[in-house]
Amino acid sequence: MKKKTEAAHTRIILELIQYNEKEYFSHNDLPVDDLLNKQQADLVNWINLDGLEVNLINKIGGHFSLHSLLLEDITSEHPPKVEEYDDYLFFTLKMLYRIENDKIDYEQISFVLGHNYLLSFQEKEGDMFGSFRERIRLDQGRVRKKKADYLLYRLTDIIVDNYYAVLENIGQQIEQIEEQIYQSPTGQEFRNIQRLKKELIFLRKALYPLRDAMNKLVRDDSGFIDPSNARFFSDVYSHIVHLIDSLDTYKDLTSGLMDIYINTLNTRMNEVMKVLTVISTIFIPLTFIVGVYGMNFEFMPELHWRYSYPIVWGGMALIMAGMIFYFKRKKWF
Amino acid sequence: MKKKTEAAHTRIILELIQYNEKEYFSHNDLPVDDLLNKQQADLVNWINLDGLEVNLINKIGGHFSLHSLLLEDITSEHPPKVEEYDDYLFFTLKMLYRIENDKIDYEQISFVLGHNYLLSFQEKEGDMFGSFRERIRLDQGRVRKKKADYLLYRLTDIIVDNYYAVLENIGQQIEQIEEQIYQSPTGQEFRNIQRLKKELIFLRKALYPLRDAMNKLVRDDSGFIDPSNARFFSDVYSHIVHLIDSLDTYKDLTSGLMDIYINTLNTRMNEVMKVLTVISTIFIPLTFIVGVYGMNFEFMPELHWRYSYPIVWGGMALIMAGMIFYFKRKKWF
Amino acid sequence: MKKKTEAAHTRIILELIQYNEKEYFSHNDLPVDDLLNKQQADLVNWINLDGLEVNLINKIGGHFSLHSLLLEDITSEHPPKVEEYDDYLFFTLKMLYRIENDKIDYEQISFVLGHNYLLSFQEKEGDMFGSFRERIRLDQGRVRKKKADYLLYRLTDIIVDNYYAVLENIGQQIEQIEEQIYQSPTGQEFRNIQRLKKELIFLRKALYPLRDAMNKLVRDDSGFIDPSNARFFSDVYSHIVHLIDSLDTYKDLTSGLMDIYINTLNTRMNEVMKVLTVISTIFIPLTFIVGVYGMNFEFMPELHWRYSYPIVWGGMALIMAGMIFYFKRKKWF
Amino acid sequence: MKKKTEAAHTRIILELIQYNEKEYFSHNDLPVDDLLNKQQADLVNWINLDGLEVNLINKIGGHFSLHSLLLEDITSEHPPKVEEYDDYLFFTLKMLYRIENDKIDYEQISFVLGHNYLLSFQEKEGDMFGSFRERIRLDQGRVRKKKADYLLYRLTDIIVDNYYAVLENIGQQIEQIEEQIYQSPTGQEFRNIQRLKKELIFLRKALYPLRDAMNKLVRDDSGFIDPSNARFFSDVYSHIVHLIDSLDTYKDLTSGLMDIYINTLNTRMNEVMKVLTVISTIFIPLTFIVGVYGMNFEFMPELHWRYSYPIVWGGMALIMAGMIFYFKRKKWF
Amino acid sequence: MKKKTEAAHTRIILELIQYNEKEYFSHNDLPVDDLLNKQQADLVNWINLDGLEVNLINKIGGHFSLHSLLLEDITSEHPPKVEEYDDYLFFTLKMLYRIENDKIDYEQISFVLGHNYLLSFQEKEGDMFGSFRERIRLDQGRVRKKKADYLLYRLTDIIVDNYYAVLENIGQQIEQIEEQIYQSPTGQEFRNIQRLKKELIFLRKALYPLRDAMNKLVRDDSGFIDPSNARFFSDVYSHIVHLIDSLDTYKDLTSGLMDIYINTLNTRMNEVMKVLTVISTIFIPLTFIVGVYGMNFEFMPELHWRYSYPIVWGGMALIMAGMIFYFKRKKWF
Repeated sequence: MKKKTEAAHTRIILELIQYNEKEYFSHNDLPVDDLLNKQQADLVNWINLDGLEVNLINKIGGHFSLHSLLLEDITSEHPPKVEEYDDYLFFTLKMLYRIENDKIDYEQISFVLGHNYLLSFQEKEGDMFGSFRERIRLDQGRVRKKKADYLLYRLTDIIVDNYYAVLENIGQQIEQIEEQIYQSPTGQEFRNIQRLKKELIFLRKALYPLRDAMNKLVRDDSGFIDPSNARFFSDVYSHIVHLIDSLDTYKDLTSGLMDIYINTLNTRMNEVMKVLTVISTIFIPLTFIVGVYGMNFEFMPELHWRYSYPIVWGGMALIMAGMIFYFKRKKWF
Repeated sequence: MKKKTEAAHTRIILELIQYNEKEYFSHNDLPVDDLLNKQQADLVNWINLDGLEVNLINKIGGHFSLHSLLLEDITSEHPPKVEEYDDYLFFTLKMLYRIENDKIDYEQISFVLGHNYLLSFQEKEGDMFGSFRERIRLDQGRVRKKKADYLLYRLTDIIVDNYYAVLENIGQQIEQIEEQIYQSPTGQEFRNIQRLKKELIFLRKALYPLRDAMNKLVRDDSGFIDPSNARFFSDVYSHIVHLIDSLDTYKDLTSGLMDIYINTLNTRMNEVMKVLTVISTIFIPLTFIVGVYGMNFEFMPELHWRYSYPIVWGGMALIMAGMIFYFKRKKWF
Repeated sequence: MKKKTEAAHTRIILELIQYNEKEYFSHNDLPVDDLLNKQQADLVNWINLDGLEVNLINKIGGHFSLHSLLLEDITSEHPPKVEEYDDYLFFTLKMLYRIENDKIDYEQISFVLGHNYLLSFQEKEGDMFGSFRERIRLDQGRVRKKKADYLLYRLTDIIVDNYYAVLENIGQQIEQIEEQIYQSPTGQEFRNIQRLKKELIFLRKALYPLRDAMNKLVRDDSGFIDPSNARFFSDVYSHIVHLIDSLDTYKDLTSGLMDIYINTLNTRMNEVMKVLTVISTIFIPLTFIVGVYGMNFEFMPELHWRYSYPIVWGGMALIMAGMIFYFKRKKWF
Repeated sequence: MKKKTEAAHTRIILELIQYNEKEYFSHNDLPVDDLLNKQQADLVNWINLDGLEVNLINKIGGHFSLHSLLLEDITSEHPPKVEEYDDYLFFTLKMLYRIENDKIDYEQISFVLGHNYLLSFQEKEGDMFGSFRERIRLDQGRVRKKKADYLLYRLTDIIVDNYYAVLENIGQQIEQIEEQIYQSPTGQEFRNIQRLKKELIFLRKALYPLRDAMNKLVRDDSGFIDPSNARFFSDVYSHIVHLIDSLDTYKDLTSGLMDIYINTLNTRMNEVMKVLTVISTIFIPLTFIVGVYGMNFEFMPELHWRYSYPIVWGGMALIMAGMIFYFKRKKWF
Repeated sequence: MKKKTEAAHTRIILELIQYNEKEYFSHNDLPVDDLLNKQQADLVNWINLDGLEVNLINKIGGHFSLHSLLLEDITSEHPPKVEEYDDYLFFTLKMLYRIENDKIDYEQISFVLGHNYLLSFQEKEGDMFGSFRERIRLDQGRVRKKKADYLLYRLTDIIVDNYYAVLENIGQQIEQIEEQIYQSPTGQEFRNIQRLKKELIFLRKALYPLRDAMNKLVRDDSGFIDPSNARFFSDVYSHIVHLIDSLDTYKDLTSGLMDIYINTLNTRMNEVMKVLTVISTIFIPLTFIVGVYGMNFEFMPELHWRYSYPIVWGGMALIMAGMIFYFKRKKWF
């Protein structure tokens, strides 16, 4: 069984935004059938669904004659991809959902681009498009003068832009962990490095296929993307290449962190061993010497000499000094 | 000698399912010759053989004029591949047989797709197609309206779907092992990691060539697969790409497990060494001191002083306290 | 200087086998000139030379107008390759010579395929073709009905088949070594792993270029290989791909063996260190205590108390018990 | 948000250099509008801006009708790339800014090449082009006889040449660190190796995409680069390939440094452990022996023998000698 | 600045060899201008320069109208490459200069192939072409019947042949080091392995681009290489492929050497630790026991028993025997 995307506990929100250079309408509290009927051929119709409710998706799918495999793709988890159908273009990718306490959440977003409409399906309520919706409403920038393909570009650009925030967060974590290790490793760093590695594995899974998908969009000749807009998608593509580049760098840096961590542990362990060695090698022979004069033989002439005791102390002091000198020269401490 | 696939201890089952939009027949207790004669040109004829009995295969091969190299391929083990012949298409892959106690068993399944028939050869009795056979009989879904190529798609889709179960099982094992290592490693984890690695090596051997084979099916222009069905095979292809993607992730995670295991062992060993060092460095000098006053020299003035004994105890307590302070500051325990 | 293939101590054997559907002749005791004159245009002429004797090779080369670079290639060592000349096709590869005590020997074999003849040059006496020669003589199978290109296919197929024996041998060794390591490593395993690694390096050097060479044969359009026989060479090609696949698996398993070996050594060393730590940490403080009461101070009140001795024993027993409890809780033994 | 290039604390300098075979003008203190109006069609117009001041860039962009995406690219950080527009060619890369105390600083430089002008945008004040500006003014070399594309080649060549200095600096550092490790490692070497690794990661990020960009310039057929000048860009390309080659070598050498560092640490630690072992194994048994004769049993006949004491000394000397002989034979010291 | 090739301390030698099937001339003591004037259109003119003296190179460059970039390439260091110009072909590679005490020296050699001349530029005096010059003079082999392109082939073949000597030397060193490590590592082996690694890195830098350059020569269609000679260059190409093959093998073997070295060190260290552990664990408890009976308590009944002393000895012997048995069973020694 393919893994279904997680849909529980998400409020379902269905919204229609329609615009052209002159007009703008927005509906987000209509039943699905009424909302679908509002579609107008001379406007760009953007239908956005938060929460992958199967019945709603099937109704929308029926209205726009979406292929059954496509509907399945919207609700199941899989890598980013672009697929061309006769009457529309399907594009799905991962979108940053939020960063909380160095924990990064993603959701899957799917787009269906037709000639005068764009459908977007998100797993969870809420997205990064809020201020962009405002720009459409207030007719800022170029978007009201352009078609649905430009709308797709703008949304994609916003999504890709947010990956920079993810990478920046990871970059900061790497620096923090490195500093902690050099100062005083607590053992927690190891787990943090492992967590970072998993984040990077996930990002790689999101970005590599996204690059290929975006490349397919750039070279698209199916007519859904106007050639005059190709340069915009090409720009997003080069951002993704840059992101992948940085990702590879962070992967190398994280591997380096492991080296640093292990080296730090080893250095500390070696320090411990050296202390043990120095103390042992100094005192073990001395203990032997005092043991000798603790023997109870009847005939041990030294025991009865007047200056034996200070002489033994002197000898032991000499041995100790010699060893400390030897260790110093060997740079053991 | 090429390795023969394992055929022992398997009950031989030969079954013919025939259908079109209107009719449906099923035979599974006929002698091979009678069964082959039942083939009808206006029906889709699906002949399935469980157990690679050479005589049966040769008889079927004779009836459908199968190439001698193809017959050899059915009974010997090799990686997934697609091969085009003039009158049929040959497709072989590995199929999940069962998962028991985290042990995964596979069997090899080979398909021969002709214009109105599909032959399938399985190593062992029993398969994952039971409920799908019911769907054909009850005329659910599209399958009765389609030809033999669609039947091949459905069977392939079921096989590929089952790999998700394999990967999910492996994913769970990785999480369990990680948790065990962090809690209290018993040494068994190392063997489990090695076992996981072997599972992943096997999966890689099954999936990478399968991807290439499926790609060949998608781009097939020999006429055995109707162009209108290409999108279905393309969907299976993208599932395989997703599986390989996850496989690579699990490979990285398993490597990470080894790092975690080794680091945990090292951390524990270091802890052991620190205890040894602390105890030794504290008591070895003290033992030397008491050894000094165990010497039997005649002339050791301290021995006869009234407060020597408590003074020595005091000195030793000071040394001990100093060392503990030193170790604390070094964060050795 | 390119390395010459080893030719010493090999008996030189020159043999001619001629056949078509109706006739069969075999000569192996003729002088080279007589033997070359026996060649007949309406038969397949297979000349096989065991032992790379330069004069003989030059005579054969002269008779068939072989290029000087080709003659040099026959007698010097190099990777498998296929080269097309105007009047013949040159194909050279490594052939298993024998497996003795897990030691694998290879020899280089070179083929020259003309329109009605096949020349084969082997480094050493004896080969794997004995029973196949019998099949030609007794007219079993298809070979007598086919031309020289099919003969080349059959010989190549036999050579490639023998690599399966090599890989099986290596697979068994891997399993044996793994078992030995888990039971009781003797240090010999390390050398065996290194030896296996070298075997795999050699195999890789033999098989990767062989795959490319065979691919060249499959796609050959020079006319030396009949298109109807291309599928046979294609089958050999897919066997080589399978071999390489298995080779990669064995490489991974051998790397895994190193991990297992090192981990086993470490685990054993850790066990040793733990015993040292436990014994030392228990007895070093106790030895200190008994040392205290071995001091010879005049004024040590405990020495004269009635129950000092059993009390000290009791105290030491308590310390010992406490430590053992501590170690047990830490799971050190 | 894409990361903006750092622009603070940089003095803004805008400069125009105009020339052809006969004339030469230079302006660097004009307001931007006046300076832009000085542009002449029959001269090569090189406008260089130090400091990425957005208003200035927008004014220049307006004058030359630069695309909004291009203007964004000038002020944001990203990997080297070449982009063709209808009326100009965009080329951006990293340029060495300075090397101080083994710390290497880079800045981003962007070029816009039109048919009779070249715009260059640098992050920081000051560059490596000083002596080249002199050569233009004094009409040395070929540059005054050539067009703007040759000017771009010369600037690119100077930039790429400076990477050799970077690599030479890194090569020297590698040698220094290796020497230090072999002589007496202080722990600082580890951090230096890590720093070098980061430098190499940065260089890789600068050079790999630069190679691809330069390759695009070499094969450019948009007409901005005269075919007769292609060989010059091709030469720069081959320098970049050489640089990458050296980069890979340095990467391998740096990895080697880590091996050397770790091996040196281990060797020193092993030496420490051997001293501990030798001292311990010699004196622990001796201490036991003297302990035996320190026992206070009433009935210990040896205690009363005349020559016990020298005999015990003799025995201990023998044991010591035996052990030293054993260790010597084992080559432990 | 690109690195200049090292030219100091080399005697400058300029030599012209001219030949065709009938005639042969040789000049090596003429001033450069006279020598250049001796060039004849109906002869193959081979001008060889030892020592990269810039003035001489510029004069030769002027005479043959060599491109300024080409002249720069002759005197600066860079990877092997082939470049086509309108009137000549440029080919540069690294050539073995000598092997002394396992130290391998190379020099850069550059060829310029025109229609009836070949120029060769070497860094240092002396080369591997001595006996080949004799063969030309004495008209042995084919060279006098062929043109300048065949001369280039012969020189290239000699250069590539000498790499076999380099690899053989490296192969012998690997075997020697391995044997030394297994017998008794002295620490020197580690440095030797590092040195070998650097040699292999250098060779890789010389051979990989050489393969690409040679491939370009083989497929050359500029007319400087006669198609009938392509097979000769193709033969050199396959030698380079073989060399690279062997190089990769040696790289793997050298990595294996590191494993062997580290494993041997670890095994020896473990042996040391085991001795320490065995001695310590045996004697530490015994020392405790004798310490007990060295205590000076007034009331220790055992001290006055008749057979205490032999009983204690017996007890200690039992403990010792038990421990030795335990260690033996654990296979610690």
